[in-house]
Amino acid sequence: MSERFRGVITPILTPYNDDHSIARDLYLDHAAGCLAGGAHYISPFGTTSEALSNSSRERMEMLELLIGSGAARPDQMMPGTGLCSFEETLTLCRHAVDLGCAAVMTLPPFFFVNASDEGLYRYFSELIEATGSEALKICLYHIPQMAGIGISPALAARLNVAFPQIVVAYKDSSGNWDNTQAVIEAAPGISVFPGSESFLIKGMKIGGGGCISASCNSNVAAIRAMYELAKTQNWEAAEAALGPINIHRQAIQDGGLIPALKSLKAYQSGDLRWLNLRPPLDNADSELWAALAATLPA
Amino acid sequence: MSERFRGVITPILTPYNDDHSIARDLYLDHAAGCLAGGAHYISPFGTTSEALSNSSRERMEMLELLIGSGAARPDQMMPGTGLCSFEETLTLCRHAVDLGCAAVMTLPPFFFVNASDEGLYRYFSELIEATGSEALKICLYHIPQMAGIGISPALAARLNVAFPQIVVAYKDSSGNWDNTQAVIEAAPGISVFPGSESFLIKGMKIGGGGCISASCNSNVAAIRAMYELAKTQNWEAAEAALGPINIHRQAIQDGGLIPALKSLKAYQSGDLRWLNLRPPLDNADSELWAALAATLPA
Repeated sequence: MSERFRGVITPILTPYNDDHSIARDLYLDHAAGCLAGGAHYISPFGTTSEALSNSSRERMEMLELLIGSGAARPDQMMPGTGLCSFEETLTLCRHAVDLGCAAVMTLPPFFFVNASDEGLYRYFSELIEATGSEALKICLYHIPQMAGIGISPALAARLNVAFPQIVVAYKDSSGNWDNTQAVIEAAPGISVFPGSESFLIKGMKIGGGGCISASCNSNVAAIRAMYELAKTQNWEAAEAALGPINIHRQAIQDGGLIPALKSLKAYQSGDLRWLNLRPPLDNADSELWAALAATLPA
Repeated sequence: MSERFRGVITPILTPYNDDHSIARDLYLDHAAGCLAGGAHYISPFGTTSEALSNSSRERMEMLELLIGSGAARPDQMMPGTGLCSFEETLTLCRHAVDLGCAAVMTLPPFFFVNASDEGLYRYFSELIEATGSEALKICLYHIPQMAGIGISPALAARLNVAFPQIVVAYKDSSGNWDNTQAVIEAAPGISVFPGSESFLIKGMKIGGGGCISASCNSNVAAIRAMYELAKTQNWEAAEAALGPINIHRQAIQDGGLIPALKSLKAYQSGDLRWLNLRPPLDNADSELWAALAATLPA
């Protein structure tokens, strides 16, 4: 790609029917709504999507449905593709590339919590070679508190140097600003997206790409407006916008993130299927929704 | 099942060709060798098998191959079936039940590191109901240091009470004896298998089932002999047998477990494909093999 990835990216929620199947009608509405509300891209099957609860079959079907229904264009999508198994990760990467997706967001092979940077380099470089397409654009997905293993600044830099047209982005969901800053400094060829809009301004001041954040499911218009202010270096106005955005973010975090977001969607849509999460996660609680809604812009 | 699960169980290594495909010839030889050497059961696709590096397709093909080739009977197998996705875990459980496997060894849905016991109960109980077969026997697989989430003694007991004919075993790979003891005490209906033969005697003295241990890949005859001594409550002789067994175990652990075991297999078989591990794990080192072999019984 000639241009860097930038923008506000929503890792979209996955709504479920009462029998735990994906609620396709709610899914398509929500995806289209995030894009209409201001997201540059959506990421189906990130952590906020309960990605690892969804089978490879479902993931591929949903991408095809999003495109086929017109809810999202392929160039607006950065689907999650990272599984433990190389073969299954490769299948999802190839599928996304074949559909023309803008990029893929790829976890390191979790469960292998003691893998070395050398082993992870071997994994990603073999994955890139096996995918065999220059259309592949990878956003490395760093979320060590869930995956048990992360992607170090040095590994990100090494992969970007080896594959400058392919390893082009990094999502930092660690919540650790020092890591975000270290990746931006170590790998200037990579667009770094903090996993929270709270770090959007701080990141963009030193070359970060924007954010990929759970609360872009509930508050995307405000986050997009803040992004535009930061993009034009209107830092003071951006900081002023961040205040109320952070209040909503904190309320969502205090409510457990996914259940809080789903509770809010149930409230806004009037459709109680939004309260469903797949096991092992617990269903969302309708008690909280009014308080959460009160933290959103009027 | 009328009888409790007991015995020495080998979570068999998965050998790879140089192109990373499964080396079927070595795989079948090794599985048959573990059973001939004294294992009561083999567990294809445990952690020592690099299970999470293998696709669902490969796992099912290998079970069918083990049976079809005569390397193992279904009633000698307790395959790993635990993935993050309910649907994919269900597919593996049903496949194993349909083949007539003795049991399945099932991880909690890892990555969901913050799931509650209630959420995990919902996951396992729905899995059991969806499998829909009284032939299903589950060995709960507790390995929190890799999975990021474990199965508490209380959860094991609750599942055993709810499904006394189905949730019948527990593999404790935590290395934490206090947890092993707590599960034995909390869930007397469950056969608890420590993940190390070092705890076999201690466990069997209070009702434990034996062991499911990585070093049953390299030292199964000695471990089986110790098991027989413990089974007949010949504790003093069992303790005497444990000394040299622990020396070998320590050498394997110091060598990084899977690479050490594969190095030893390469040495013993003369087939250097045994040195291959799939990324993100690093290949085994042939430098170590003679020292490891020296710790085995003459």
